[in-house]
Formats: sequence, C-alpha cells, structure tokens
Amino acid sequence: MHFASDNSGPAHPQVMEALASANEGYAMPYGKEAAMDRVRDQIRKIFEAPQAEVYLVATGTAANSALLACMTKPWQLIYCSDVAHIEEDECGAPDFFANGARLALVDAPDALIDPDALRARIARTEQGVVHGMQRGPLSITTVTERGTVYSLDHLAQLTGIAQEFGLPVHMDGARFANAMAALGCTPAEMVQGVDALSFGGTKNGLLGVEAAVIFDPDLAWEFELRRKRGGHLFSKHRYLSAQMEAYLTDDLWLHSARMANAAAARLAGGLQQIDKVEFLHPPHANIIYAKFPRADHLRLIEAGAQFYSLGSLDGPGEEPVRARLVCDWSATAENTDRFLEILHG
Amino acid sequence: MHFASDNSGPAHPQVMEALASANEGYAMPYGKEAAMDRVRDQIRKIFEAPQAEVYLVATGTAANSALLACMTKPWQLIYCSDVAHIEEDECGAPDFFANGARLALVDAPDALIDPDALRARIARTEQGVVHGMQRGPLSITTVTERGTVYSLDHLAQLTGIAQEFGLPVHMDGARFANAMAALGCTPAEMVQGVDALSFGGTKNGLLGVEAAVIFDPDLAWEFELRRKRGGHLFSKHRYLSAQMEAYLTDDLWLHSARMANAAAARLAGGLQQIDKVEFLHPPHANIIYAKFPRADHLRLIEAGAQFYSLGSLDGPGEEPVRARLVCDWSATAENTDRFLEILHG
Amino acid sequence: MHFASDNSGPAHPQVMEALASANEGYAMPYGKEAAMDRVRDQIRKIFEAPQAEVYLVATGTAANSALLACMTKPWQLIYCSDVAHIEEDECGAPDFFANGARLALVDAPDALIDPDALRARIARTEQGVVHGMQRGPLSITTVTERGTVYSLDHLAQLTGIAQEFGLPVHMDGARFANAMAALGCTPAEMVQGVDALSFGGTKNGLLGVEAAVIFDPDLAWEFELRRKRGGHLFSKHRYLSAQMEAYLTDDLWLHSARMANAAAARLAGGLQQIDKVEFLHPPHANIIYAKFPRADHLRLIEAGAQFYSLGSLDGPGEEPVRARLVCDWSATAENTDRFLEILHG
Amino acid sequence: MHFASDNSGPAHPQVMEALASANEGYAMPYGKEAAMDRVRDQIRKIFEAPQAEVYLVATGTAANSALLACMTKPWQLIYCSDVAHIEEDECGAPDFFANGARLALVDAPDALIDPDALRARIARTEQGVVHGMQRGPLSITTVTERGTVYSLDHLAQLTGIAQEFGLPVHMDGARFANAMAALGCTPAEMVQGVDALSFGGTKNGLLGVEAAVIFDPDLAWEFELRRKRGGHLFSKHRYLSAQMEAYLTDDLWLHSARMANAAAARLAGGLQQIDKVEFLHPPHANIIYAKFPRADHLRLIEAGAQFYSLGSLDGPGEEPVRARLVCDWSATAENTDRFLEILHG
Repeated sequence: MHFASDNSGPAHPQVMEALASANEGYAMPYGKEAAMDRVRDQIRKIFEAPQAEVYLVATGTAANSALLACMTKPWQLIYCSDVAHIEEDECGAPDFFANGARLALVDAPDALIDPDALRARIARTEQGVVHGMQRGPLSITTVTERGTVYSLDHLAQLTGIAQEFGLPVHMDGARFANAMAALGCTPAEMVQGVDALSFGGTKNGLLGVEAAVIFDPDLAWEFELRRKRGGHLFSKHRYLSAQMEAYLTDDLWLHSARMANAAAARLAGGLQQIDKVEFLHPPHANIIYAKFPRADHLRLIEAGAQFYSLGSLDGPGEEPVRARLVCDWSATAENTDRFLEILHG
Repeated sequence: MHFASDNSGPAHPQVMEALASANEGYAMPYGKEAAMDRVRDQIRKIFEAPQAEVYLVATGTAANSALLACMTKPWQLIYCSDVAHIEEDECGAPDFFANGARLALVDAPDALIDPDALRARIARTEQGVVHGMQRGPLSITTVTERGTVYSLDHLAQLTGIAQEFGLPVHMDGARFANAMAALGCTPAEMVQGVDALSFGGTKNGLLGVEAAVIFDPDLAWEFELRRKRGGHLFSKHRYLSAQMEAYLTDDLWLHSARMANAAAARLAGGLQQIDKVEFLHPPHANIIYAKFPRADHLRLIEAGAQFYSLGSLDGPGEEPVRARLVCDWSATAENTDRFLEILHG
Repeated sequence: MHFASDNSGPAHPQVMEALASANEGYAMPYGKEAAMDRVRDQIRKIFEAPQAEVYLVATGTAANSALLACMTKPWQLIYCSDVAHIEEDECGAPDFFANGARLALVDAPDALIDPDALRARIARTEQGVVHGMQRGPLSITTVTERGTVYSLDHLAQLTGIAQEFGLPVHMDGARFANAMAALGCTPAEMVQGVDALSFGGTKNGLLGVEAAVIFDPDLAWEFELRRKRGGHLFSKHRYLSAQMEAYLTDDLWLHSARMANAAAARLAGGLQQIDKVEFLHPPHANIIYAKFPRADHLRLIEAGAQFYSLGSLDGPGEEPVRARLVCDWSATAENTDRFLEILHG
Repeated sequence: MHFASDNSGPAHPQVMEALASANEGYAMPYGKEAAMDRVRDQIRKIFEAPQAEVYLVATGTAANSALLACMTKPWQLIYCSDVAHIEEDECGAPDFFANGARLALVDAPDALIDPDALRARIARTEQGVVHGMQRGPLSITTVTERGTVYSLDHLAQLTGIAQEFGLPVHMDGARFANAMAALGCTPAEMVQGVDALSFGGTKNGLLGVEAAVIFDPDLAWEFELRRKRGGHLFSKHRYLSAQMEAYLTDDLWLHSARMANAAAARLAGGLQQIDKVEFLHPPHANIIYAKFPRADHLRLIEAGAQFYSLGSLDGPGEEPVRARLVCDWSATAENTDRFLEILHG
C-alpha cells in the first residue's frame, strides 16, 4: 500500500531494459550520442514544435530552475501559485539559479492560479520604476501541487494574461503526462502559449530524467550554459537519453500516466463512499488530498500503508487529519482495495 | 580503439545488475533508502573516518561546486592549479555555487601544484585588508588534469601549507581510484589533511555517481542545503546508492581502476618505443598526453580510433600535434595493440 | 508646501558647516580618519552598547542589504512586513546581497507586524527539512512604511518571538529618530533585542549617510567585506563621518526629528478637522496617509503643493484618492497652514 | 608632504561651494533634479556622444562593477590586466555584481595590457563550447594602476582586438582626467571604441562622485536597475549632481588633473636626479612608483611624509624598498621640494 509519492515506486521494466541496451560499447558524451537526436526529434513531433530545443537533466528542480533562470532577470518577479513547488519544495533553487530573482505568490484556490488575482498582481508591479522588482515570467504547474489539473480554458486564460503583459510562460510539468491523461488532449494543446516546459519523467516510471523543452529557441544556448554551470550536464548522458527514449516509445509515458490516474480514480471512488473521509481538493489526476480521523491514520500506518499524514498524529483519535495519497504507474487494485478496506474499518 | 575519455565507455556489468536489483518495489526517496546507510558505512570504513558524512550526486561538477561552496565565503579565493578542472571545464560552476568566489591559479608543472608557488600565492593574499579577496580553500585534483598523480609526500606538503595558513582542503577525486591504484596506498593515506573529497565513480564504471565525502561534519548540513538548492538531490535516490554500493562491493572500484591503469601502462609502454612519439607529461595513471605527427592522427582517426587531438588537423603532416589518450576499465589489450600498430606505421 | 518626502528637503546647515570643516587638509581614507573614531564612540554611548561596531554607508538600501546579508544564509527566509521597504522599494537588493535569500511576508495591519502572524509564519517554516527555505532573521521597520510607530511593548513581543526561535533581528531605522521622538524613549530601549540596526540620517537632515550599527560583534568583519564588495566603502570617508558627527552633536538628530514630527502633528491636527479627509493609518511620526477628494488633490498640486497622490488623478472629482504627506525637519508652520487652508477650500 | 593617495586630499573649494548652493530648498530625489539634466547634457557634449546615458554613483567600485555587470553574462570572462583595480582592489565586487563572472588576467608590462597577450587570451577562450567560460568584455584602466597612461595608439589596438572578436569594452577611468591631461587629447579620442566608462571625480577634487557614462544606450535601463539593486541610487541625488556639475564647469576637472600631473612631474624630475632612486614604472601622470633605501623611507616618514611603502620597513637600511607616491590637485611645490630634499639627504 504505497501511496507516499510517485517518486518512491520502481522504474518501468521497459526503461530498465533500455538502460541495459544503452550500455553497449562506447558513446559520445554530453548529449552528443545518437539517442539524444532521436529523443529531440520525437519530442518535437509530439509537441508539434519543429523548432523546439530539448535538453535532459536528472531532477525537476534542475529543470525548473535552469529554465526559469533563462527567462528571468535577477530583478524580476516570477509569478506563481502560493503553493507552487518552486515556492515550497526547492529550497530556493529558482532564486539561486536566477541570481536573486523573487517569487510573487498569487492566490490559487485548489492550487489553480486565479486569473483575476494574476492580472491584479502583475498590474500592481510597477514597470519602469526602478524602486520595485520588475515583471517577469509566469510559472504554472499542472498537475498542481494539490492534485488538481488546469482545464485548457483555464490555461488559455493564464497564458493570455501573460501575453497581454508581454511576459513569458514556464510550465512545471513534473506530472505533465498525468495532466494530459486527465484532460484527454494533445501535448500541443497543453503547451499553447508556453515558452518553456519541464517535461517530467521521474514521477512516471523513469529513474530520474526530466526534459527541458524550450519552444523559444533564443533561450537554448543560455540554457546549455546554465545546465553546465549548474553541474547538470551529464558526461555519460546516454543513460538519460535512453530513459527518455523508452519513455516516449509506444507512448509508454501516456500509458503509465493513465495507469496512475486510474489507480487514483479507483482510490478516490472508494474514499468517496466512506463517510468519515472529506476531500480537500478535487482529485483530478493521481494525487488525492483528503482528511480522515487520526485513528485511521494510525491503523493504516500500522497495517503497512505508506502515505503522508499532514498533521500531528498525537491527539484525539476522532479528530480529522489531512493525508496526501499518490498513485504511480505501478499501483495495484489489490493494494488500493486493501487500503480502502482498512480505512473503512 | 576508444581512448577519447573514461566517460564514454560502458558502465560495469555489476553496476547494471545492482541497478536492476534496486528497482524492486518501493523505496524511501531522497537518500533515506537503506542502501544509502550501507554506502555511508562502507565509505566511512574505507576512509577510516567514522565521523565522515557522505552524500551522492550525479556529476563531478556538482560534487566539486557544492563542496567548495561550503568551504568558501563569496569574498574568498580558491587556490588551485592553473589547469584545474574547476578552472577549465566547469563553466564557472564553483564561482556560481560559491556566489562569486574567485579562483587563484597557482603554477603547476605537469598539473602538479608547486608547493613554493602555492605558499607564495597564499602569502601574498593580504588577510584582513578589506580591499582584496581573502584566503580560502586549497583545491587539489588527483589524478590531475594532465594524467599525473601526486605522491603522498607532495600531497602532504600541500595540505601542510594549507594547514599552516589555517585553510581547508578540497580534493577533486574524479579519478581518485586511479590515483590510489597508481600509488598503491590506502584511501586514508590519500586524504590526510583533506576536509572534503569528491570521490568519483562516473569515470570508473558507474553511470553517473560521485560521492561527496565530508570529513568535517560541521559542513554537512550546509552541503545538504546546497545540494537541494542546486537541484542535485535525487528523489529516486536509490539508483545512485545502488551504483555506489556496487562500486564499493568487493573493491570493484579498485579493480576497475587497476584495469584502466594497466591498459594505459600498456599503451604508454608501446608509445615509448615509437620514436616519433613524445610524452608531454609523465603518464602516472590512465591518461596519456603525447604528441606525434599530424599524419598519424589522421591515419588513426581514419582507422576508427577515438581520442582528442589537441590542435588543428589541417597542416603539414609531419608536424607533431598533441593528443590525449584515456583508458577506462573496459579497454582491451587488443585495441591498444592495434592502436600502437597503426601509429607505428 | 513640500510634503513629498523627507528625502527632498535640504540638509541641515550645521551638517553643511561640518562638511566644510572636514574639508581641511588631508585625512586617512576608508574610515580611518579620526572623526570616525569619535562617531563610533558616540554611537556606542548613545546606544549604551560599548561593544557595538559602527559603519557608515550612503544609502538606506545599502545599510539594510549589507546588514541582512550578514545575518542571512542564502537558503534562509527574512521575515518582514508585507509592505516592508525591503519588499517594496529596494528592487530586490536584499535578495541580491544575500545571494538569493527570500523574504517571507507577514501580515501587518498599519504596517505593524502582527505578533501572532509572525509566530505562525516562523512556525510553519519547517526547520531541518531540506526541501524548504530555512528560518532566518526578522526585519522590523520603525517608523513603518505607513507612518506608524511600534510601541516598545510591540517591539518586545516581536523580538521575543525571534529570540524564542533563535533568530536574529534587524531594524530598518531609516526614520529611527522620528520613531524615538514619537515614543519619548531612549535609543537603548528602542533596540532591545535588536542585533543590527540601520540608523538613518539621510531623511533627517543629512546629505546621505546611514550608520550600520552592529550589536553582535561577530558580524562586523563580514560587514566590512560586504560593504567593500558592494562598492559602499568610501575612500573619502571623512565626508560621511563629518555628517554623522554633526548629526549626533548636541542631539541634532533628535531636534530635527522632533521638528519633523511636530510639523506632521500640526498637519494631522488640521486634517482631522476637515470632514472630507480620512486617515488611512494613525499618523504616529512624520508621515501621514490620508485620503481626500481627487479635486482637492488637483487644486493642491496646482497651488504648488508637492506630495504623492497614490491613485489616478483622472476621474470623478469627488472620489477620494489616497495621499502620502511627509514632513522633514525643515517644514514650516506657514506652509502647513497654507496647505490646510487650500484643502479646506 | 601628502603623497599617500589622491583620495586623501581635500575636495576643491568650487565643489564645496556648489554643494552649499545645491542645498537650497527642495529638490526632486533620485536624479530627477534639474542639475542632473545639465550634467548629462554636458557630459554628452564633452564626449561628443549625444546618445550617451549618464548616471552618478559615489564610488569607483560601484561604477566599475555595475557597468561591468551590464556587459557581462555570469558565464563570461572579463579580460583585464593582471594588476587591474577590479582584480586587486575591489574585494571581488565585479564577480559579485556580475553574479559569478570571472576575470581573465592578461599580461601587462607596466600595467599596460599587451595587445598580443590579449589577442591570445581571447583566442584561447573556446567560444560555443559549454565546458569553459565564454568570452566577455575587455576592461581597460587608464591612468593604470602603476601610473602609466595608454597612448591613443595602444588604446586603439586594444579596442580593435575587442571589436575583432565582437566584445564590448569598459574603461575604468578613475583617473580619466589625469590620463587625458597627460595625452593632451580630447575626451572623445580617449573613448574611441569604448562602450562604457567610469568617469572618475573622487580622486580629482570631488567628495565622492563617479559618472557611469554608457555609450551603448541599450545598457542604460539595466544599469539603472543594477544601480538601485546595488544600493547605489541616492535619494538626495542633488549632492552628487552638484559635485559633478562643478567638476565640469570651466574645465575644473582638467585644471585639477593638470595640477596633479604637474606636481607629480616636479616630483619625478627631482627623483630622477637622486642616484639612489630607481623608477619601477614610467610615471606618466600623477602616480610614481619608485624604490629607494629603507632608511630613507624611515627618515621621510619620521619627517611627516605620507606615502605607501610597499614592503617591510624592518631590515637593512640600505636595501631598496618600493614606494608609491601620488599627487592630487592640491599638492604644493613646497611640499614636493621638501620631500626631495629629505630624500636627497
């Protein structure tokens, strides 16, 4: 019963096989291997973006920070949700990579940036007045940090506002595949108006690879320098491209995401039927935020379930405590049902 | 005939097996997996340093930069050889991670820092005078960037000078195993007087793992923050610890290094007997710098040999051009002999 | 009728005289002149802090940023009010000087940090968990950016909370003298629990000098280096120390602040009697925030009054628009009364 | 007998008068005062550069660092002489302002950058290869740090090389006036091929003002932001513009420089006739580097002379010790002659 995170499950067997195959003989280092050319071509095809530049790094923090640094001057604001991963979970990596740029937090019910709040926040950034930070990029995460997924309409509103103010858009797509699977749209539809994307693989069956997809080719060379300077250029790069190639082959990325989403849907469906469970955010993809009595947390943990309890486990048993439950591609119906059974009591 | 770099060969089969084994089921993320505890214990044992803290990152640049940043204030100098990797090959990563610290280059014949030049360079850094940069750490690479290896005496002289001035010492050990194999000493002897070590695996049979070994436990928490903030903390960290564990098991790291060194020795031995070849630096480990006629470069390349020609290949055929030849653990006697045969002409 | 800012009025004649006197002959550069010793002694005496170190810079942004940088690691948060000068008016200077540290904004009705909000904000910064920014200093401004002044009790609550969590405290005292004059307390009482103070002179009759007063001597050498490295160490430093010495002589600083506060009190008193005027914040010192009809803004401006209208001057005349009115030491009763007369209509 | 530095003498009386005059009434802050418009116009006229943007800061380190930061990406090299002020005397300010850019030191006999060495150093910076730092601006100081002055030909060679490689040029003109006076050329001739100039005032009779003159208007807005963010935008900016205006009025800047140069010429002429004195560099302007016996250092110091002895004063009296002697506008023939007399013995 592993619902702690989609970063604690195994890599997909096809990825492991690809890794083994990639280990034959010698290969040019630093992304010059042939597999990287194939990855680049495939990503361009998938996103219908023949000009896009594609780079691989091993962590989402690296992808987000290096991309944002290419889009942000040190004296600019990065507009993001008030629970954005770059705000809460990267120990200030964007501030570091962007040499002291600053995040501007925007109200985001269910972690979905409110368009009016965004417009207001940008508008009140006085442009051309030297005393305040200047306007910079918009950063959008989807699947969001609370498990919701932006509708295409919502995305269009946000990117439209950015465009209105002449600001570039970054997308943190650590769970891009899960969002797409939830929407049933094309990759190109997801990135309408997006200038740079962190296209996640690690949480969806890879060992550790994220693609930085740069739709604005003017940013590409700077990204290469920032990747190197950040220590993120792999010499034995073939092991990154092999993973990403396997990920893209036969839509493994989408299949995996669909499996994770389906598992979460099964879990959410079951939770909905348990009275003592209350959802904190609508579970759109593979992450569920819910609360249920502390005693149930303890019983589940004792039974071996792994998940994050977002609150103290000391206290009255009947008091509801928040939980985060995440499914990855490897989640099984059996485990889900057992979890529900225990929780049901 | 692959002599381009020890970062272009395959990973060792035992490492690939370990990776496959590590892919079973779920594991705690971010270095909390059990394998990391074993790695830490083993490295402490190997270095006879029970207090040492051990962290894994995926690139040497990350290990060097994050370690140096923990040892260097932004207004301090990092003393290093004038051909140090941190000077020539990391696109300013140490300057970036250490927030604008500066390298102070010291004369280093054959890439071995000259003790007198080091003492003089430190001494002329006026301490306590606010106008100039202040004294900071000494960074030593061994195997050096020119293929030489410091003797233990030489190391003791350098660390002694650092100690004399109260300065910490960093060792860039991207090829630590090759250096140790060359000296036939213990790991602990290699790091006498060293405060923090980049213990390389990538160039010696891993896919991409370097251990940051911190002998001064006061630097450990800062390293953890800098690793995270630099985007170098892996969520699926088990794939790093699995590699490193395999590396340390049954001295794979030493065996691999010895194989690489032996291959290079065979190559060097052969080169020595070819009149038109001149060594540029004494080849102590698995890297050879030599020069030989341009025409031979071309013939070798045409025959499929891979190595770095450090000079233009346009020009008179008889003119000597520099070459860098590197052997990794997988180099074969057959290839070496074929290379020599072709070069011999 | 100059109410735009206390940085647009003239320097005090005594300061100009001191400057002229300081221009005799030769003087040691970089703060080694004798006047600086006298300044240091006097500030130690005034603050009853014989260990304090004192440095001069020319701008408040420099004083705040360099001090905060000495108190903040790059991965730490600086807790401050959501309208703090360091948030709104320094173009990210603290983020720059502190190498990517981040501000954490705390609710502050009337720009006075709410103690409960502060405690909650610090408490929710997870300490020792590498994913989030860590706890750093508290920064308090008084006179605040909205013209209010912290009571000593309020200050004690805030510094008490910082102490509870083991965090250092910075005070932005750009208008320290005005705050003190408003409270009628001693300097030492104002800085109870404060580790480093920006002691302002520029807004109170100097040409441009702020003292960085460091009560924790461990931070002193780092401050010297950061001052130099930031380009803020004056070679002809005597012109800074001369100003500061004149400022401290015969309590000029307090007299000037009292004059400014008195002028503002006269203005506030008059405003209170005009029905159409509404205060936005209680005016505790020399800054008044009020709103009154747009038409009156226009009439006042036409009559030559200078002040900041914080809103568009296009629109219905009867609509209230916010205004910021600031008095400096040179404000005259005559001008104040004329302003009130015009506004009264 | 004050020969320690041109930053230890008094400001020129005309400057003090201008400062007093500027202290009348109210003035717009932050460089919006009318005097700044006049300064800008005048500098444009002087440099025959109607598009130039002009900003004032208080220190040379601020001017150099903020200008260089606008011209340099963090991953670029700044080419400069191996004794450049930015290398030796700014505690890494350029590295800090340019977010970890790096200086590349070029051989410079008598502190004059050798054109061949410059070309070679730039040429060996591999452009477009991500592993190394990339090419960035050239920074030239004149009067140099050793008292020499570049000929116009020499300058043309250096700026020509920069242009050849497409690199921008910065000039550290802390003693621009002294260099110009030495050459007898026009300001425009001095800055042929220069993109940004630190035009010094502090060492030539001001209290503390340097003009950042930006010939490439594309850099202007970024400079404004960096000035603010660096804490170098003065609120009471009128005291900077007043100084600079006085400096430019009736060529005060040139008269002062000529007086300083003449004083140094008188001193150098005298030194030349003393056998035991040996010049270390040809004294082209107002700085003299010479060596003479230690005993004479001691005698001069005892007699009240102020200058920098660049070496220990403990040791055999007959041993030559280096000295730096600097004249400012206020140096008198009387003092010079007395110094020579004592030294002559």
